[in-house]
Amino acid sequence: MSETTAAPDLLSDPVFALHEGGKLEVRSTAPLRDAVDLSLAYTPGVARVCTAIAQDPGLAARYTWTSRLVAVVTDGTAVLGLGDIGPRASLPVMEGKACLFRVFGGVDAVPIALDTTDVTEIVDTVARLAPSFGGINLEDISAPRCFEIEDRLRERLDIPVFHDDQHGTAIVVLAALRNAARLTGRTLADLRVVVSGAGAAGVACTKILLAAGIGDIAVADSRGILHPGRDGLTPVKAALAASTNRTGCTGDLVGALAGADVFLGVSAGRVPDAAVAALAPGAIVFALANPDPEVHPEVAARHAAVVATGRSDFPNQINNVLAFPGVFAGAFDARAVAITEGMKLAAADALAAVVADELRADRIVPSPFDPRVAPAVAAAVAATAREDGVARA
Amino acid sequence: MSETTAAPDLLSDPVFALHEGGKLEVRSTAPLRDAVDLSLAYTPGVARVCTAIAQDPGLAARYTWTSRLVAVVTDGTAVLGLGDIGPRASLPVMEGKACLFRVFGGVDAVPIALDTTDVTEIVDTVARLAPSFGGINLEDISAPRCFEIEDRLRERLDIPVFHDDQHGTAIVVLAALRNAARLTGRTLADLRVVVSGAGAAGVACTKILLAAGIGDIAVADSRGILHPGRDGLTPVKAALAASTNRTGCTGDLVGALAGADVFLGVSAGRVPDAAVAALAPGAIVFALANPDPEVHPEVAARHAAVVATGRSDFPNQINNVLAFPGVFAGAFDARAVAITEGMKLAAADALAAVVADELRADRIVPSPFDPRVAPAVAAAVAATAREDGVARA
Repeated sequence: MSETTAAPDLLSDPVFALHEGGKLEVRSTAPLRDAVDLSLAYTPGVARVCTAIAQDPGLAARYTWTSRLVAVVTDGTAVLGLGDIGPRASLPVMEGKACLFRVFGGVDAVPIALDTTDVTEIVDTVARLAPSFGGINLEDISAPRCFEIEDRLRERLDIPVFHDDQHGTAIVVLAALRNAARLTGRTLADLRVVVSGAGAAGVACTKILLAAGIGDIAVADSRGILHPGRDGLTPVKAALAASTNRTGCTGDLVGALAGADVFLGVSAGRVPDAAVAALAPGAIVFALANPDPEVHPEVAARHAAVVATGRSDFPNQINNVLAFPGVFAGAFDARAVAITEGMKLAAADALAAVVADELRADRIVPSPFDPRVAPAVAAAVAATAREDGVARA
Repeated sequence: MSETTAAPDLLSDPVFALHEGGKLEVRSTAPLRDAVDLSLAYTPGVARVCTAIAQDPGLAARYTWTSRLVAVVTDGTAVLGLGDIGPRASLPVMEGKACLFRVFGGVDAVPIALDTTDVTEIVDTVARLAPSFGGINLEDISAPRCFEIEDRLRERLDIPVFHDDQHGTAIVVLAALRNAARLTGRTLADLRVVVSGAGAAGVACTKILLAAGIGDIAVADSRGILHPGRDGLTPVKAALAASTNRTGCTGDLVGALAGADVFLGVSAGRVPDAAVAALAPGAIVFALANPDPEVHPEVAARHAAVVATGRSDFPNQINNVLAFPGVFAGAFDARAVAITEGMKLAAADALAAVVADELRADRIVPSPFDPRVAPAVAAAVAATAREDGVARA
């Protein structure tokens, strides 16, 4: 019976019903009702637009849709919590991402799931596609490959390249931490933070927290706290070890947590309740593993002043949709050639500011459906692009 | 002054006004109004769809948009009559093509203009993109590179690959010629045809006419009629020389035209009026060069019974939009793994049949806006895909 029961399940499941035929469509914004319409939008009229762009390539941004078009690029190697499920199986997530870009950011996006996991092939392929897009959102690519892919594409392309699993998460985490610190009467410089997880999100969160002026950060992977004396570190982890861990921890995550102000979990590893209880008084716990947080938020709430998760069914959801639609909308508004560290910090500040006047322990970030979010983030990102000298408009 | 007058011209030109911001947009077909919507279309619900596709890759066709999504792929080397203007300047044409796919075929399409002209790089890039699309429409890629690119992609991919400049043109030409022959009381087998042009369109038209049973075809390039004794033929032209020219012409185009039943012009070369006058009585002239036909249609009409052009301002416009939307819609309906020669012939027959009961010398093909066209072509293509054993649905 097991082979034949799958079909009825799919039919009755509202998730599968919603996904029938996919979640995206391309529409023509040009009318095509008669020969006159055709002669304007297509031949012979279109030839004049092509000729103008051939003479002045900068006009492509004005007369094609590319200036507001994101490629959501993946190789399907690190999809949600599912892991390496391949490009085809990743597509529903990439389509969902494109839906979010449209609905929350007013930005067009197309899923590009690649049939290769080779770093150089991915970089070459995306570089060859680049004329067709105004920005590249890398998505669900496994670490440490994601770091090299992003670095090489940023080097090679003059359009925004943004690995959302890194920087989207980092922006929202910084915004949330800024508000949590304010709510608990701390400054960022005084915080001692312990990060569990040294993958895409852990690395990017650590970097943005350092850039924001956080005093002391210790980062743990599955083998314990990163420190310069540890053997067998990847280049990315070695760099992280060199720039963090000011107090010189060398043990495991649990040891580092004793007396820390902030626990930031961005791995699937569980944390013992006792380790959470050993945090500093009035601690801040961000347990972002999905669907199972590193510590249950109700347990965390017994020991911490502020608790956030990645889940929509608890308060303070750290959700990337608070960042990426506004980041790309702002970068596009400024016709930015890159997304700088300053633009990410500005995005976090703007996101934090949205709820600054209504801060509560269960409201350190806005709801994903708060209509103020994307415009606020976009305005800050565009303004900082101009300050940083990466804007063309 | 010349530098400063460009901007006002662009602003007052209705073609540029229409192109402001491009001609396409991506929309979400899934509602995203609240947390419940988000949990169905995105996390956590979407993970179930991903898992189902990972277990049964065939489900991607059902639960993603790829099964009705075309990549309109170009390298910008042979755009309209403009030539090698590069990928960015080609984008307005590719966007226009995507608009036509949507409006005439109900098919989603995304322009993919590639920043490489290397055949192997183009093939590798498109193959790596393939999981994201249900079909590949090659467009405006120069000959003879277009032949190798299409052949290698057809070999490598299990989705429809269709070079529209070849096969779209060929399908509409065959449909028009079928109706023109019927109108002038001839059978295809009795026709003597002379083709001017051995590029993408000339090669594909010749092949489809041979497959449809036309008796005698001579093909000329800029150096004269192709025959097996000619030196320096490319492999494609050598193959064409071997399969055409039954009467053994060896001279120039003008000589071959004397007494021929059909002139098919798919090059930019002009044909002397006297050569047109020397065609057989009641001849058929398709002068498809755009915007300047090989012979002016009014001159041709003095000597020929039926005249067609590529222009919308004369009767009998041979326009690819009569073919490609229905071809892909039909291939998608059948979930075809390829587009066979039989599917192209069936498309031509179906297109011819749309106006079979209303044939006139100035009405051998339907208008591009005839709503019967795409459904008729799609139905024939899907049925033939099933007969040819390339359908999965």
